[in-house]
Amino acid sequence: MTGIPRIGITLGDPAGIGPEIVVKALSRSSQLPRAAYIIFGSGRVLEDEQKAQGLTLPLRPFLREASALPAGLYLDDLAYPQAETVKGRPSAEGGKASFLYFQKAVEEAEKKNVEAIVTAPISKQAWGMAGLRWRGHTEYLTQSYPEAIMAFWSEPLKVALLSHHIPLREALLLVTEANLERFFWALSRSLDRAASRPFHILVSGLNPHAGENGLMGREEEEIEQAVRKVKAAGLPFDGPFPPDTVFRKALGRKDILVAALYHDQGLIPFKLVAFETGVNVTLGLPFVRTSPDHGTAFDIAPLRTADPGSLIQAVRLAAERSA
Amino acid sequence: MTGIPRIGITLGDPAGIGPEIVVKALSRSSQLPRAAYIIFGSGRVLEDEQKAQGLTLPLRPFLREASALPAGLYLDDLAYPQAETVKGRPSAEGGKASFLYFQKAVEEAEKKNVEAIVTAPISKQAWGMAGLRWRGHTEYLTQSYPEAIMAFWSEPLKVALLSHHIPLREALLLVTEANLERFFWALSRSLDRAASRPFHILVSGLNPHAGENGLMGREEEEIEQAVRKVKAAGLPFDGPFPPDTVFRKALGRKDILVAALYHDQGLIPFKLVAFETGVNVTLGLPFVRTSPDHGTAFDIAPLRTADPGSLIQAVRLAAERSA
Repeated sequence: MTGIPRIGITLGDPAGIGPEIVVKALSRSSQLPRAAYIIFGSGRVLEDEQKAQGLTLPLRPFLREASALPAGLYLDDLAYPQAETVKGRPSAEGGKASFLYFQKAVEEAEKKNVEAIVTAPISKQAWGMAGLRWRGHTEYLTQSYPEAIMAFWSEPLKVALLSHHIPLREALLLVTEANLERFFWALSRSLDRAASRPFHILVSGLNPHAGENGLMGREEEEIEQAVRKVKAAGLPFDGPFPPDTVFRKALGRKDILVAALYHDQGLIPFKLVAFETGVNVTLGLPFVRTSPDHGTAFDIAPLRTADPGSLIQAVRLAAERSA
Repeated sequence: MTGIPRIGITLGDPAGIGPEIVVKALSRSSQLPRAAYIIFGSGRVLEDEQKAQGLTLPLRPFLREASALPAGLYLDDLAYPQAETVKGRPSAEGGKASFLYFQKAVEEAEKKNVEAIVTAPISKQAWGMAGLRWRGHTEYLTQSYPEAIMAFWSEPLKVALLSHHIPLREALLLVTEANLERFFWALSRSLDRAASRPFHILVSGLNPHAGENGLMGREEEEIEQAVRKVKAAGLPFDGPFPPDTVFRKALGRKDILVAALYHDQGLIPFKLVAFETGVNVTLGLPFVRTSPDHGTAFDIAPLRTADPGSLIQAVRLAAERSA
């Protein structure tokens, strides 16, 4: 890429806090890196939001054929939802709209009209009401990009997940040598491509004390085998380590990422130390994709008290990784 | 109890850091509450340790028939192990000795000759070499006291575990309404008996986002039922909450304890925020039992660089809870 990055930002579910935090974040330009920001969403929703906040963003229309854009704010007006949605209430209309914004942003990223996309929160429930079969952004991306990996980034801690939105019972069954080896290779390729510095990856065990030599579970043998194989191929992996100390080892270390084996193994420690500043990153894509670390927050959406902090961090990381 | 508390302290595995941290802790009397401290262990091991540290503890023999003891240090010399053990090396002899110290301390607590016991680390491996079938202190206690609960205490976070040293696969199978109801009642009884202030208990879910209404796992129905039942009986329980946010909710709150459903669900967050100051507590016993939150640390045992901080916290908590 030459010039300044073009960063797509989706509005998320119109009934959630997405439009609110997008407008708040983009109105604080001093906190954002210099870039062309392209909002994918409904012009009407965005106008309502600006009115509610008593401000006007200097928006220009997005000319997708332009190979470079001057820094500033752009809108790709997708004229959806066609009916009103009610703040705080999930609906099929909101689900459909937020899916469309996301799909469009992905399409532009695939065409290289933007380098990165930052996605405001969607509602799984609203996607379900709209008849969409994906549980979220990452699941949709995994369909086209089987190497896509859900990861979480913050100053104190970085984690990547072997599996995410499935029952814990099923997640355990995915802890096999073959799955892990594939995961480690995908993670390594993605980090090589995107990271400005090399990472050392610590792999967590699955059982208490990482099984303590088979005394409490045998999955660690699979993990050991997979780690041994990728290490032999020169990849910077180590483990398995006891789950209850591996995150402590990684804490505050810029050069360490923890490979976690299921959703909460990675997210319990991540959300504990990086609650306000965490960013969700999808690794293993041909473009950059980040998002804030929280949901639609329907409960507080009508109040307009949402904090754009995590979205701002997501925008910063997107800019850093597309530079 | 009247008068000052009598607190038993076991030496732990002679080859680990147990003797070292016991001597270090007891030589810092200004950091300890006023109490009668009774060491259960080998006089010879203790003497070697004092020589290595270049100090002499003012030890008196433990007169177990005395109904009250003046503050000070006492030794119940158990004359075990009979052979030398080597620092840093697990052995059957060390396993047998550390088991004997512990068993003796429990016996004295059962006879009400001490109000509390604080246990220095034993080695599961050494216990195994000695042919002992328990995986640790808590497992031994659970045999006589089926209501025994493994819990972890620190200023920032307090957690109690539904299950501990078993494979994760098996831990999942214990998440049933009947088990949970029994666990909640035992936890509640134990906290009522021992706590100086009432606790509110937040129950974690098992699956990502606590299952999100059955979308990702069904164990939350069992948890919901159990919580509903004990709430109806007036117990201060709530949940299930998403595992990746419930520990954040409890962080820094003196009046909140999290009920975690498996070893690492509770210990990943606990060790992350309370690494140096965490204390392991067994709830549900007719006496107080605490221990430091770390193991024998065989790797550093020959160096004598171990930090007695967690043991000192364990002693303080034992004194507080036996007052």
